[in-house]
Amino acid sequence: MSLLTSWVTSANTADAPFPLNNLPYGVFSTANSDPRCGVAIGDMILDVAAAEEAGLIALTDAPLFDVPFWNEVMEEGPKLWAALRTRLTELLAEGSPDQAELSDMLVAQSDADMHLPFLVSEFTDFYASKNHATNVGTMFRGAENALPPNWLHIPIGYNGRASSVVVSGTDIRRPWGQLKGPNDDAPRWAPSARFDLELEMGAIVGTFSDAPVTVAEADEMIFGYVLLNDWSARDIQAWEYQPLGPFQAKATATSISPWIVTKAALEPFRTDTPPREKDLLPHLQDCGPMLYDIDLQVTLTPEGKATSTIATTNYKEMYYSSAQQLAHHTTSGCPMNPGDLLGSGTISGPEKHQRGALLELSWGGKEPITLDIGEERSFLEDGDTLTLHGAAKGDGYTIGFGTCAGTILPALADPYKR
Amino acid sequence: MSLLTSWVTSANTADAPFPLNNLPYGVFSTANSDPRCGVAIGDMILDVAAAEEAGLIALTDAPLFDVPFWNEVMEEGPKLWAALRTRLTELLAEGSPDQAELSDMLVAQSDADMHLPFLVSEFTDFYASKNHATNVGTMFRGAENALPPNWLHIPIGYNGRASSVVVSGTDIRRPWGQLKGPNDDAPRWAPSARFDLELEMGAIVGTFSDAPVTVAEADEMIFGYVLLNDWSARDIQAWEYQPLGPFQAKATATSISPWIVTKAALEPFRTDTPPREKDLLPHLQDCGPMLYDIDLQVTLTPEGKATSTIATTNYKEMYYSSAQQLAHHTTSGCPMNPGDLLGSGTISGPEKHQRGALLELSWGGKEPITLDIGEERSFLEDGDTLTLHGAAKGDGYTIGFGTCAGTILPALADPYKR
Repeated sequence: MSLLTSWVTSANTADAPFPLNNLPYGVFSTANSDPRCGVAIGDMILDVAAAEEAGLIALTDAPLFDVPFWNEVMEEGPKLWAALRTRLTELLAEGSPDQAELSDMLVAQSDADMHLPFLVSEFTDFYASKNHATNVGTMFRGAENALPPNWLHIPIGYNGRASSVVVSGTDIRRPWGQLKGPNDDAPRWAPSARFDLELEMGAIVGTFSDAPVTVAEADEMIFGYVLLNDWSARDIQAWEYQPLGPFQAKATATSISPWIVTKAALEPFRTDTPPREKDLLPHLQDCGPMLYDIDLQVTLTPEGKATSTIATTNYKEMYYSSAQQLAHHTTSGCPMNPGDLLGSGTISGPEKHQRGALLELSWGGKEPITLDIGEERSFLEDGDTLTLHGAAKGDGYTIGFGTCAGTILPALADPYKR
Repeated sequence: MSLLTSWVTSANTADAPFPLNNLPYGVFSTANSDPRCGVAIGDMILDVAAAEEAGLIALTDAPLFDVPFWNEVMEEGPKLWAALRTRLTELLAEGSPDQAELSDMLVAQSDADMHLPFLVSEFTDFYASKNHATNVGTMFRGAENALPPNWLHIPIGYNGRASSVVVSGTDIRRPWGQLKGPNDDAPRWAPSARFDLELEMGAIVGTFSDAPVTVAEADEMIFGYVLLNDWSARDIQAWEYQPLGPFQAKATATSISPWIVTKAALEPFRTDTPPREKDLLPHLQDCGPMLYDIDLQVTLTPEGKATSTIATTNYKEMYYSSAQQLAHHTTSGCPMNPGDLLGSGTISGPEKHQRGALLELSWGGKEPITLDIGEERSFLEDGDTLTLHGAAKGDGYTIGFGTCAGTILPALADPYKR
């Protein structure tokens, strides 16, 4: 695979995140148009609703793009996904006979506001990086009990809150919560003082299932991937999470990047999960390379100040793939639906600078990190903008995810003092 | 409050579950009609979609009942809820001028199939009966650690899986799962051998919120209540639940009764939560009687055999009310939506026969219960039909919930042997 060239010339460089090889799916609006489906190409967006209205995309009897979300495309299934990608590639390739007509359907990304690209049906978050689980387990339960006994046998996950998923660029309000330190007699009601990010990938389920599926079938069900930041209030979490898991600590917001990068675009970057430390039961075993080689970065920008890179890692650090997670998710007969979002869990590499959360980077606040501008951080401060970056690097081309950003707003005055 | 009389005479007895005082909301179909909204009265259902089409219900500009679910009514908010109840009471009261016309819009409940009465947006399950939490905690973690330190300060809950919610009468297929006994070297893949019920009430959120709400505001947001059975695979749960809570153990199915009993119908049965053992933070404190006096029963019917009552308890046994649970649910800014379903958690009284799950009734299988027919049960067996019953008893009238039933089907052959 090498760079495919488009008549949208900004797409034709080795570093462009959205070349013809990528074609990620989003929902955008402009000053003149309500939210509608679009495909990123170079620094532009192709208005696919307009292309469909003009008859340039005609893959189904009923329109696919009369709604401002991609769920209807998902529900059509993998054959339609492939046909749509083929057609979009034809339309946007250098030499396309439709270039003149399509040119009027391009919008500059700089003129567009991005929206959630799909209706989130339900949200599940996993805990599938061994480095992350070991680090957090050590802090919460001690080194002896760091990795729970089930961890090497099951991709551990919990159900999150779909209503809290927001698109990149949405401000994140520091939450209040019930907090109790280990030396406090009783809990108190206060703004979270240990508010954190979690660098994750999100896999989007594209089809229905109502019975257990294999890892291979699960992989077929996945429509695409986004960057995902599962904002986490560590002080709320520490007090609430036993015995039934995180709840309000994770319910303030989860941000996702606006462009769904399809599985097809990522195909050249497939890579194996790491060697198993214990054999998995057969139904959870890989049947091929199920992870992806995607470089990931987290940057932190204090309000009005310069940006520092605080973490650099790769999606291939995961112990479990999204396909394995989805297969496990179906084992009890749990019905899955198009628009279900599966967070990978925080992605941490083995090195300190590869950790995907401040909890780990600052070792629970005991070892604050130092930003390039000299300021220290243990957890997030008001005004900080956190940005996730992701890109798979091919031979002369890039499959970019764009960014997933959010700025921390100060907690409101006590919401119960009125 | 006493029995209100209706021209539907089957509604006019002290034991009738659906008198004019009740008017619960459901969705039904018949051999001749697709699913549509209805209101139970006596042994009949009023087709409210037909009544609206005929102009007998005209509360909004746009139709309320052109869809087979009650979410649109919920979204209209408490004023509309009150107006609708007033209008339905007029229409169905003895002496109604519209009796003749409405008579043609009645369907016998025996001729109807019931469906989920609303689109479940998201499902949260709590753990708010102190007797249940103490019993389960003792079995899972020992008597010393039975009640987690946070339990008396927070209504502990976890996010469940909305896609798994089914209406009463849906058969429940015994799940497969990853199981590991304390003496096993490694987990194995097998059907659950410790499949259980959980007797709960479900509270249905009727309005939106995107900021912390008080207990009083939370109570106003609740549209109504149903019976709820959160089917639970105890062996899957025991192996998977640390550290992030139950996941596949609770994802096979959750059954709810088909009739939403409104908060208005339950108003005469309000009762206080039990005395607090530790003071709650102010935002979680009751501001009035927030529980309800509702008698609850569980019956078990082995295939082709006689029915036994295996548990008898009351909703007022809860330590936390649904309003307190919903208030806590919003503390971090978690957005809530119409159609969100909140399970109360298993409702257990202090006595052995008042326990709402076989896990507790049989003390983890160590003390099997004996059915009236002489058979023993530790956990559910294939062919067992479990039925929840609920009713609030007034002076000469009943506010019935109907039943919430499900029959256990045997596990399928290994879904991965194909």
